[in-house]
Amino acid sequence: MKAAFYTGNEGIQIGECLPVAPRSGEVQIRVSYCGICGTDLHIFHGRMDHRVTKPAVIGHEMSGTIEAIGPGVSGWSVGDRITVRPLDPCGACPACKAGHSHICQKLKFIGIETPGAMQGLWTVSANTLHRLPASLSMKHGALVEPLAVACHDVRLGAVKSGEYVVVLGGGPIGVLIALVAQAAGARVVVSEVNPFRIALARDLGIEVVNPTETDLPALVEEKSGGAGADVVFEVSGSKAGAAMMTRLPRTRGRIVVVAIYSEPPQVELFKLFWREITMRGARVYEPQDFEVAIDLAASGRLPLDKIITNISPLDELESQFHQLEKGGAVMKILLECS
Amino acid sequence: MKAAFYTGNEGIQIGECLPVAPRSGEVQIRVSYCGICGTDLHIFHGRMDHRVTKPAVIGHEMSGTIEAIGPGVSGWSVGDRITVRPLDPCGACPACKAGHSHICQKLKFIGIETPGAMQGLWTVSANTLHRLPASLSMKHGALVEPLAVACHDVRLGAVKSGEYVVVLGGGPIGVLIALVAQAAGARVVVSEVNPFRIALARDLGIEVVNPTETDLPALVEEKSGGAGADVVFEVSGSKAGAAMMTRLPRTRGRIVVVAIYSEPPQVELFKLFWREITMRGARVYEPQDFEVAIDLAASGRLPLDKIITNISPLDELESQFHQLEKGGAVMKILLECS
Repeated sequence: MKAAFYTGNEGIQIGECLPVAPRSGEVQIRVSYCGICGTDLHIFHGRMDHRVTKPAVIGHEMSGTIEAIGPGVSGWSVGDRITVRPLDPCGACPACKAGHSHICQKLKFIGIETPGAMQGLWTVSANTLHRLPASLSMKHGALVEPLAVACHDVRLGAVKSGEYVVVLGGGPIGVLIALVAQAAGARVVVSEVNPFRIALARDLGIEVVNPTETDLPALVEEKSGGAGADVVFEVSGSKAGAAMMTRLPRTRGRIVVVAIYSEPPQVELFKLFWREITMRGARVYEPQDFEVAIDLAASGRLPLDKIITNISPLDELESQFHQLEKGGAVMKILLECS
Repeated sequence: MKAAFYTGNEGIQIGECLPVAPRSGEVQIRVSYCGICGTDLHIFHGRMDHRVTKPAVIGHEMSGTIEAIGPGVSGWSVGDRITVRPLDPCGACPACKAGHSHICQKLKFIGIETPGAMQGLWTVSANTLHRLPASLSMKHGALVEPLAVACHDVRLGAVKSGEYVVVLGGGPIGVLIALVAQAAGARVVVSEVNPFRIALARDLGIEVVNPTETDLPALVEEKSGGAGADVVFEVSGSKAGAAMMTRLPRTRGRIVVVAIYSEPPQVELFKLFWREITMRGARVYEPQDFEVAIDLAASGRLPLDKIITNISPLDELESQFHQLEKGGAVMKILLECS
């Protein structure tokens, strides 16, 4: 069994996995696949060194089977097919007490603050497990975590059937939001500038425009009978996206901010005021989002095979990071971990 | 009967009122008092010349009595004490059809796009009228319109009894929001830098801090048991207010943007994302907000006398504008119009 260790400064070292025997309330998992998230790339680039303890096993988009069960765990058996909701809330802060434990004020993200899934055997709390149905492949199971992000975002956006939705940014999360919103019955257009991502999203059955070539506000106004979009998802994390998002919604329309901004962008608050737009942040997921994501993934309604553009052995992690940072013909990369 | 005409470039001319006989659906009003709004000051400064037709009678915070009634108006009698909800929606645009006529996409604001109340006799649609109870003085009646703004803002902020509320900006609207939120049972702190406004707000029974002297985020954290504020109202329209507003709410707390920004400020979207904060714009009011404002004003629970710092004849409008722009010992100025 192998493990990939982030050693700092774009360094990855492949070594032997060091299995941890499950303690009370824990299970040990044989990891099947682990996806590479944009956050993992940020860690690789050294931007999150304040949160990781090196050498660090990272990774949190995974599927696997239960290998061993610690004391006091009920409801699970060795061999069960699972994915992990990688959140470790404190349970005691005001956010946890208010029922917002997914955004706990002292949240530990498993795979960042604590060891992650890019290894053959991984030990986590049984509280984090979600069961994968037999109809869901392990490859698709590794997409449940990012799909749960999209389900959370669409739920917080309160997207309803027949609504007109704009997604700013056509990376993995933007595409998944578009697919989940379409599955909810919405009309969706994605705004993206990267030619490969445009082509891939179109291949997934999503309408895409390039905002450097198309007047997006004019298009949205036309397609909505002059009203504006019902919901806008800002997933680009760009200044252009932050400037665009307030120009698109209808009166009392909604903006969901999904992207992570390292710098505060300029936001046209006047438009927010003028149309009484609601803008809300949406971060990670709650347990129900995992259940919805699993059902949706297992339904076969989503073209998940096309989202997985690369599958490689764990020991190619470093070269896959370089592939991802180059952009181009890559959407979701899965690592074979055991 | 007199009227005040804005003639452009900080010019005000006092002349004879030119009464307009009420047509079908209209009433003629003898205006008792008209308040000066920040918007009126903007018009005086020439910043809204694209919306006014000069010479323009402006003004929209008023009380008065019905002087004459046009054909087809029912439910109203000469002598009825009223105030006006100064909105003229088109009734046909997507916003109106969606039930958002108060933010109609072609909204005419009475007193900006069409003649206002700074005159002795004023003719408006009977649809705009709200009845003032006998227990409400005409002076206080002229505060109903800005109070309705505050009631709208507090309603859209969904302020509940016991919640902790921060109001950024202690001008007339900020103070009214604080008073309405207090009346709803909230704990309120206002953030303001102007010493006179600080003193006046304290005299109104409101807790006020100067954010240049007090660490507001630390205060809010302490007063909320580490959670953060339930609701933040951004009324300052300043870059500092836009930077501060996202630092204060609890997880899933709310920000209501009431201020009008002429330039898009920087907004820390990361904090919006991190705590899943909801930010919404709130503009003008709906009919129910006027009814709540009238009931609240008539209840005697609000210290409205102290908010009215100046009462002057209509023909002193120009000097009152200069008084208002100087700042200092002035909050709400009322003009005697008839």
